[in-house]
Amino acid sequence: MTKSDTTLFFVPGTCAQAVLIALYEANADFNLKTLSFADNQQRSPEYLAINPKSRVPALVTPQGVLTEVPALLLYVAQTHPQANLAPLNDPFALARMQEFNAYLASTLHISHAHRPRASRWADDEAAQASMRAKVPQNMRDGFAVIENHYLGDKPWVMGDQFTVADGYLYTIAGWLESDAVDIAEFPRVAAHSARMRERASVKKLG
Amino acid sequence: MTKSDTTLFFVPGTCAQAVLIALYEANADFNLKTLSFADNQQRSPEYLAINPKSRVPALVTPQGVLTEVPALLLYVAQTHPQANLAPLNDPFALARMQEFNAYLASTLHISHAHRPRASRWADDEAAQASMRAKVPQNMRDGFAVIENHYLGDKPWVMGDQFTVADGYLYTIAGWLESDAVDIAEFPRVAAHSARMRERASVKKLG
Ligand SMILES: N[C@@H](CCC(=O)N[C@@H](CS)C(=O)NCC(=O)O)C(=O)O
Ligand SMILES: N[C@@H](CCC(=O)N[C@@H](CS)C(=O)NCC(=O)O)C(=O)O
Repeated sequence: MTKSDTTLFFVPGTCAQAVLIALYEANADFNLKTLSFADNQQRSPEYLAINPKSRVPALVTPQGVLTEVPALLLYVAQTHPQANLAPLNDPFALARMQEFNAYLASTLHISHAHRPRASRWADDEAAQASMRAKVPQNMRDGFAVIENHYLGDKPWVMGDQFTVADGYLYTIAGWLESDAVDIAEFPRVAAHSARMRERASVKKLG
Repeated sequence: MTKSDTTLFFVPGTCAQAVLIALYEANADFNLKTLSFADNQQRSPEYLAINPKSRVPALVTPQGVLTEVPALLLYVAQTHPQANLAPLNDPFALARMQEFNAYLASTLHISHAHRPRASRWADDEAAQASMRAKVPQNMRDGFAVIENHYLGDKPWVMGDQFTVADGYLYTIAGWLESDAVDIAEFPRVAAHSARMRERASVKKLG
């Protein structure tokens, strides 16, 4: 990757942060373009030409545009093997990491999205309010799986090896407060977030 | 994989079918265990010990249990390289395939699930009815992205190479009818499904 031909489209605090952390950890050369949801820039014609799904993240690469966090995380790890951000040579361990990331993307992220984006799934305000009311419970159930099933006594999601999954977990754990769930209910998750805040990549987020 | 130590936990017609197709295409040796949702077997203590998330698919391997369709599909492709079910040596193309699978898992599958599983996201029946009412529109929007952005004039999702993504698309396209959407609205998707039905792996599903 060279500075001129790779660009991450990003909004602070969103799932795109997981990809930004991975790029920082990989010491990658890239441009950062920050969009504003307040101005609906994800729906502008310019951005729709990049990502017709009108979401962040999108990564413009020399070979074309890539989207979807779990795919982008694997791509960053594979294109920067020296950074050792995934168990690239062990199909079972890699599948475990992809499983974890897929669970975040297809369950935890979705549980959370029913608060700020309830209008995706129902048109009337009463139904949206009903969905928002259930978000804390669904986030609790999902983080209980992470706490009890995925995280062990090792520092990182994959054990002793820091991987792209860690920045993704950190990003989604960062949503718990806005979802009215106290991260302290999940001691391993809380300790993991504290560990993440010590990393140069996370400090760089500002 | 040998017959005795790899087992797919499966329910016909669910997303687990994508993994079964991949295993058939890979000519893998495995056991098939079919659960019954009608009997709530996904919530039995025996199954929770295998997958605490109480969903299918789960693949019991000699190294441990794996879940989440996109992770399982990559695992099947990586452990059966001779079957050529993914662009394993091209990080960009592999990221594209993972992107497609992640989109199915985190958007299309979720859009669909708001019909049979609306109770995951709201407790009251009126809100659930409101979610169900929006399912056809969300399935249409998602399949429009697949038709116009992902599928081209080549036979398969990744172009000329058949990959694990194809069985996944076929599986989710199979839900359109129950979601009251006519697959004929998406000619490339319809042609893709017709092409899939000619494959030995799909015929074997019965
Ligand atoms: N499945 C996608 C989801 C991407 C997504 O939903 N991004 C959110 C931010 S976390 C977004 O761009 N939302 C803008 C909108 O809904 O308009 C992924 O994992 O990358
Ligand atoms: N994110 C999971 C979702 C798995 C899932 O939702 N499976 C459904 C069948 S398509 C299921 O087991 N549902 C049972 C239930 O909700 O009780 C994946 O992609 O594997």
